[in-house]
Amino acid sequence: MTISALQKARAQYQPKLPKSLKGAVKLVEGTATESVADQEDIKDLFPNTYGMPIITFEEGTDAEKFSAVNVGVILSGGQAPGGHNVISGIFDGIKKLNADSKLYGFLGGPGGLVDHDYIEITAEYLEAYRNTGGFDIIGSGRTKLEEEAQFDKGLEILKKLDIKALVVIGGDDSNTNACVLAEYYAAKKAGVQVIGCPKTIDGDLKNEMIETSFGFDTAVKVYAELIGNIQRDANSAKKYWHFIKLMGRSASHIGLEAALQTQPNITLISEEVAEKKQTLDEIVEYMASIVIKRAENGDNFGVALIPEGLIEFIPEMKILIGELNDLLAEGTKTAEIFQGVKRSYRREWVAEKISAESAAVFRSLPSGIANQLTLDRDPHGNVQVSLIETEKLLGEMVKAKLAELAEKGEFKGKFGTQYHFFGYEGRCAAPSNFDADYCYSLGTTASVLIGEGKTGYMSSVRNTTSPAEDWIAGGVPITQMMNMERRHGHMKPVIQKALVELDGAPYKYLLANRDKWATETSYLYPGPIQYWGPSEVCDLTTVTLKLEQEAK
Amino acid sequence: MTISALQKARAQYQPKLPKSLKGAVKLVEGTATESVADQEDIKDLFPNTYGMPIITFEEGTDAEKFSAVNVGVILSGGQAPGGHNVISGIFDGIKKLNADSKLYGFLGGPGGLVDHDYIEITAEYLEAYRNTGGFDIIGSGRTKLEEEAQFDKGLEILKKLDIKALVVIGGDDSNTNACVLAEYYAAKKAGVQVIGCPKTIDGDLKNEMIETSFGFDTAVKVYAELIGNIQRDANSAKKYWHFIKLMGRSASHIGLEAALQTQPNITLISEEVAEKKQTLDEIVEYMASIVIKRAENGDNFGVALIPEGLIEFIPEMKILIGELNDLLAEGTKTAEIFQGVKRSYRREWVAEKISAESAAVFRSLPSGIANQLTLDRDPHGNVQVSLIETEKLLGEMVKAKLAELAEKGEFKGKFGTQYHFFGYEGRCAAPSNFDADYCYSLGTTASVLIGEGKTGYMSSVRNTTSPAEDWIAGGVPITQMMNMERRHGHMKPVIQKALVELDGAPYKYLLANRDKWATETSYLYPGPIQYWGPSEVCDLTTVTLKLEQEAK
Repeated sequence: MTISALQKARAQYQPKLPKSLKGAVKLVEGTATESVADQEDIKDLFPNTYGMPIITFEEGTDAEKFSAVNVGVILSGGQAPGGHNVISGIFDGIKKLNADSKLYGFLGGPGGLVDHDYIEITAEYLEAYRNTGGFDIIGSGRTKLEEEAQFDKGLEILKKLDIKALVVIGGDDSNTNACVLAEYYAAKKAGVQVIGCPKTIDGDLKNEMIETSFGFDTAVKVYAELIGNIQRDANSAKKYWHFIKLMGRSASHIGLEAALQTQPNITLISEEVAEKKQTLDEIVEYMASIVIKRAENGDNFGVALIPEGLIEFIPEMKILIGELNDLLAEGTKTAEIFQGVKRSYRREWVAEKISAESAAVFRSLPSGIANQLTLDRDPHGNVQVSLIETEKLLGEMVKAKLAELAEKGEFKGKFGTQYHFFGYEGRCAAPSNFDADYCYSLGTTASVLIGEGKTGYMSSVRNTTSPAEDWIAGGVPITQMMNMERRHGHMKPVIQKALVELDGAPYKYLLANRDKWATETSYLYPGPIQYWGPSEVCDLTTVTLKLEQEAK
Repeated sequence: MTISALQKARAQYQPKLPKSLKGAVKLVEGTATESVADQEDIKDLFPNTYGMPIITFEEGTDAEKFSAVNVGVILSGGQAPGGHNVISGIFDGIKKLNADSKLYGFLGGPGGLVDHDYIEITAEYLEAYRNTGGFDIIGSGRTKLEEEAQFDKGLEILKKLDIKALVVIGGDDSNTNACVLAEYYAAKKAGVQVIGCPKTIDGDLKNEMIETSFGFDTAVKVYAELIGNIQRDANSAKKYWHFIKLMGRSASHIGLEAALQTQPNITLISEEVAEKKQTLDEIVEYMASIVIKRAENGDNFGVALIPEGLIEFIPEMKILIGELNDLLAEGTKTAEIFQGVKRSYRREWVAEKISAESAAVFRSLPSGIANQLTLDRDPHGNVQVSLIETEKLLGEMVKAKLAELAEKGEFKGKFGTQYHFFGYEGRCAAPSNFDADYCYSLGTTASVLIGEGKTGYMSSVRNTTSPAEDWIAGGVPITQMMNMERRHGHMKPVIQKALVELDGAPYKYLLANRDKWATETSYLYPGPIQYWGPSEVCDLTTVTLKLEQEAK
């Protein structure tokens, strides 16, 4: 296999570990935990894994003797930088427990467990993947482990391979499912522990014990690099407004962190839009007002960051989408719905069939977007929100608004646009030093929890704005993060998704600076992720974490 | 001004110089030069600047005494990483000649000279821009310096500021114009020297004496970083084909170099398409064949690189675009052209008015693209080729082709697409060590040529695959790179544009490996540009240059 010069040099990197994980480890157990809400329900659903204590690791004195243990690992859901290092951490960790331990990887996500599709991850095989991005070591997948039939099918292969512990590397839903699986195997006395690891670039799996999910640091740094470069271009050419949509599903953590790293002119935060119950028109109005102010200063350029999930946080759009989903019902083909309706009349035809409020919004949309809302539906007949080009929607509406104002003589500037969507560019980047270290520590932590016979825990590594040496590693019961939420019409126990908190320090910092950044050109250029060089350039994690820690 | 941690650390970087430029410089003049073609015409047009010798710098022994000199500098055309370092090199160079020398920057490109819009670049002002990307130090612009009236207007301010030399940092056209200006001022005995510097990320300003234009190294490395990350994602998720269009105007140097750095499955080269006179259908056929082969191996994913200028290199598309430009004539509004033509009939209306061959091509295009070809025209009524989303055009046509084959049972795979266009992400990146050093050397070289009273020269720094210490600096007469070409109906002296050579080593290397890369997954992941770390990671330049040098 030919590899790049960077890959070659980076393969030599030895991830840093907290001092508690370097030698013998001593476990310190806290008091019993409770779930964040709905304690009675969660306790009933998880009789075997509820109420366990928080575990903190400290430096131990004498090395315990461990038996060899076979461990299985699963990568679940979207890619995030550092997954390979979690696996390296588990591997090195269980080998440290006992050199005869073995690691198996289930292929293509949770489906690999159910389908008995796996490989043994040997030292030699692993070597090429240390400190690299991607999930290609065993692949990932989006199959959800939710049914007991799946759990039983999985148990067959776990038994066959004599696997005593399974590590599930995934986001909030995958970790919820990991906990259900832990409970099921515990109730069944199946002899299989289940440990979770917090993964997602979206940053929405975090709480008091999980400061950040892995991959967030690296992915946002890649986006911030690109945003910074584009800002420099905007400020050099002085002729375009760049509208940049950023991946991150519902939560706006990525957009917020990217903004803190680059200081763009406009930053939309979905959670703020929902809180203020903003209309699409108000958002367009706000964006146009900044374009106008900058134009008055002679600056016919700028950069706007737009979170991927915005549309669904605009109350009127959410209602419109709901009504369209009802109208263009499940399973019905577009051709059938519109049978006998002239193409040029379709839009009006739709508008007449929905509420007056929604019709007004629908009529105000640019035609390309209106088409996306009515034509591009998923197999269940639902609008595919992730396919809506929100950046173009807003760009076109701002343009229309400015044209109106120009006619009245209230806008004299120019408004040219360039559109970008960043997501795939960052999900598989080679992990930053932070993510390389953090992931390796999470994996090592998992191995210690396995050695100690724990189940239903998530690896937790805290104090992450300090040097790695001083990070606090341990385990947190997954049930502790749970509450009951309605999903597909049923109340389910789930890990609370962390949206951007409007009383949190990162958002407040944005708010305190956003107006200044809007009119002044205060761009920061973070540049590409550095693996070598001064520590303040190559080892620090996100501004979000820094501000959150400082506020504590 | 707040700056990022990287900016802070990077500001300390001292660019490396060839040893000939470190102390006193000795000039070695070669024999008289001739233009690459049309010698008589070029000689007639440039009586004062034709036939000058190539100049090579060597280490000198005794430091000459120079008088103070005032110098002007212009950034012309699109941004390229390293422009600020060219200016730093000029500044430090003329200060080394004489501490009382001054540097003036004309603002917003060549227009700044004509409009007398300038600033003095002081040591203090310059400090914040060393080793940074962008052209924001004085801005750039696309005004062309072609008219004598402009030259005379420029001379007024040059005289007023007592400027003895002007450095034009630009691409092939800007350097052509710099030479015309040098000739004009020389003929007029105006006492103003003009020196050019080779800038463009497109890589199409190169020849025997100019190994590469600055910015190409950095920009392609940014694109290669992103392509590598996307490849890793494709190979992890295994569900998308990513169609990636790359900036680079007519030439495919960027796409070729990016391919050599990343080894994607499909790399289209415009020059090859033109040479083989490929039709759009043949290109689609070729791409579909690779999708099919990979699907047969179970790989329903891949990455395809598409050069920005492709469309115009497909002979039948070039003809179609020409016919559309004639049909949808200059100055006529779309609304007027299509007056009385039903929207749904417009396409057929157009098809009936062009040649049968072009009509066939036009009818085969996806409707979105057909619209772009007929509706989005520039103020002269011409199709705006740069706005055509070639990546989507090809993606949709490949999808249609595969759907046909699937019906016949000849394609059983899946084909999901993601589209990307990379350009603005790389033009203003902070320069790589190579570009930082190369640009600083080009600027320093310009200062030496100025000190020696030269005009009509371009800064030349060669042997660039060796350590900077051993680079060969000097000057090459711009007339030496010229030939006569037809532009807007007239024969003009211009610098030959360097397209990808199909008998050149880089293209031949691609050709020797492309089929293997197509079916095997041989992705390379170059990662982000590194400024610190092992020299083989952070100091080497492009594969193109390496292969070209090795072939010499």
